[in-house]
Amino acid sequence: MISNEFYSQENHGPYELYSLGDFELEDGGEIPDCKLAYNTFGELNKAKDNAIIIPTWFSGTSKDYEAYIGEDRALNPNKYFIIIINQIGNGLSSSPHNSPDLMSMSDFPNVRIGDDVRAQHQLITDKYGIKEIALVVGGSMGAQQTFEWAVRYPDMVKRAAPIAGTAKNTQHDFLFTETLIEAITSDPGWKSGNYQSNTEIAEGLKRHANIWAVMGLSTEFYKQEKWELFGVDTLDEFITGFLQPFFQMMDPNALLTMAWKWQRGDVSRNTNGNLEEALGRIKAKMFIMPIDEDMFFPPRDCEAEQKMIPGSELKVVHSIAGHFGLFGGEGSYYHDQIDKHLNELLAIPVPDKVI
Amino acid sequence: MISNEFYSQENHGPYELYSLGDFELEDGGEIPDCKLAYNTFGELNKAKDNAIIIPTWFSGTSKDYEAYIGEDRALNPNKYFIIIINQIGNGLSSSPHNSPDLMSMSDFPNVRIGDDVRAQHQLITDKYGIKEIALVVGGSMGAQQTFEWAVRYPDMVKRAAPIAGTAKNTQHDFLFTETLIEAITSDPGWKSGNYQSNTEIAEGLKRHANIWAVMGLSTEFYKQEKWELFGVDTLDEFITGFLQPFFQMMDPNALLTMAWKWQRGDVSRNTNGNLEEALGRIKAKMFIMPIDEDMFFPPRDCEAEQKMIPGSELKVVHSIAGHFGLFGGEGSYYHDQIDKHLNELLAIPVPDKVI
Repeated sequence: MISNEFYSQENHGPYELYSLGDFELEDGGEIPDCKLAYNTFGELNKAKDNAIIIPTWFSGTSKDYEAYIGEDRALNPNKYFIIIINQIGNGLSSSPHNSPDLMSMSDFPNVRIGDDVRAQHQLITDKYGIKEIALVVGGSMGAQQTFEWAVRYPDMVKRAAPIAGTAKNTQHDFLFTETLIEAITSDPGWKSGNYQSNTEIAEGLKRHANIWAVMGLSTEFYKQEKWELFGVDTLDEFITGFLQPFFQMMDPNALLTMAWKWQRGDVSRNTNGNLEEALGRIKAKMFIMPIDEDMFFPPRDCEAEQKMIPGSELKVVHSIAGHFGLFGGEGSYYHDQIDKHLNELLAIPVPDKVI
Repeated sequence: MISNEFYSQENHGPYELYSLGDFELEDGGEIPDCKLAYNTFGELNKAKDNAIIIPTWFSGTSKDYEAYIGEDRALNPNKYFIIIINQIGNGLSSSPHNSPDLMSMSDFPNVRIGDDVRAQHQLITDKYGIKEIALVVGGSMGAQQTFEWAVRYPDMVKRAAPIAGTAKNTQHDFLFTETLIEAITSDPGWKSGNYQSNTEIAEGLKRHANIWAVMGLSTEFYKQEKWELFGVDTLDEFITGFLQPFFQMMDPNALLTMAWKWQRGDVSRNTNGNLEEALGRIKAKMFIMPIDEDMFFPPRDCEAEQKMIPGSELKVVHSIAGHFGLFGGEGSYYHDQIDKHLNELLAIPVPDKVI
């Protein structure tokens, strides 16, 4: 266990912790006293059928989704009980840097998307007694978890909206993620994961950020010099003032845990590798929402999966920021699109309760 | 000077060397006894107006273009005198690893696209007395040099066809190239450029190759598993059997010299930064030929420049291999497109000689 003040209540709160007890993992082993960090908005109604689950993306926390939620938004806390749940390994939930010694740092086990979704299921059923989910929605790795929710708990999930992500990670995406991993693990300061401080991997985290600069945005973002979307005025400020320090604050082992998980996201693990069968299981009404300028979850990859999901619809979101459109830097231009689609989805009636 | 058997006549020949004498560089300094490696096909006619110049791409050599040339191709040695000229720093022409001690390795100077084009101009005028060029054509960094030829020698260049490249390198492309550079320079074996053998940077060159795997191809190439385009049967063979050893054979300083040059390719250096003025100077009939799946020289970037070039036309080439379509793995599907466009371009009459 080492300290990293980035993962504080000040930066990412408010969040609460829920202990799952000893949590068994798909790839073997367990996380003793596994904790999920989560944040809620609104109230669970008496019927317990107004829950919205939002899983987090790579490097992100529950804080990132706050701009998606509001009384004037589709994700309206006056109507819904919204639970943002931090994925395992993200630095807030049980993670390499915050786990007790026998599980910490390089000893932290491999975690899969399926583990996260089972953990989240345990939280919402044990703690809240939720048996029906109005909507699961999430971006990027949050989309991977959204797909996994819909496949794994088809009777429970009534609607699902994965934004900028896929049900089965592509080989191209695996390779991209590998370059992110290598940027970190090639830093001599990484020491196979047993560093004393994330600052010892500053160079590796900088290279990691620089690869994100290439793949996370779009060629058009750079051509049109849209630095303003990230609150800065110049390219140099975007790279050295925003993107590099953004990742340099994070824990390298947290990023590596999430990257390993991201690479292997695949709902067809539930059906012996048959993706069509896995997606065919889904009973939720789904809107598949890729971002048009996304360089690694391109709409055509998402559309190929969408066609395998009964009754689903493709809703392409426009953002010159590419994958990083998820950050919502375009303000209402972006969020209004998300809201339009989610409002439409939430208005679609679902079959009577299965309970 | 160190030895690297990759850059041999066996692997890349036949090629000849031409000495430019002491060659002054735009960024200051000079390369004493600067040598250009080149290869020719066909014969220069009496009028000396049938020359075609082909400059090389990043990491490439004159050998790479051999498949573009043939009696049944647009680049027909029975009609044209075709000269493929290796860019400075590519390992065959004067380069860090093959230069005498005072200029070698980390002491090799920065070279610009403009230096290459002036050097090539010196070769074809001094050695061959060529005053008119029927066509300049090249891919990627070869495209950068093609644009530079057309801007710098507007009366001499009658036709020009840059494939998969831009006249002014974009900021996104600069950042992409930076990640390639960092993959090498972050390797402790690099030793600021003063290693004894390229094998000492095997890990850095592997990471360099892995970034190419993400950006050099296309998402669709991976989805459709088109490994056959590179003569292999599996993804693993493509990455570890082809791409990694491909770059690991090369000289790291050569790659870095070319990468620095690539990042700064910009014809508007001829016009105090005014790109429209630079491209407006061009008298050559130009076909701008981006590859549709190219992730870092996308057609829309090329089209924006094409619109600034009087009388030019956009001819988009289709290749699922993205930028690496240039390697011609698709065989006649690719080369027939190139030939169609180049045949059309070469058939367009040009104004009478300016001499």
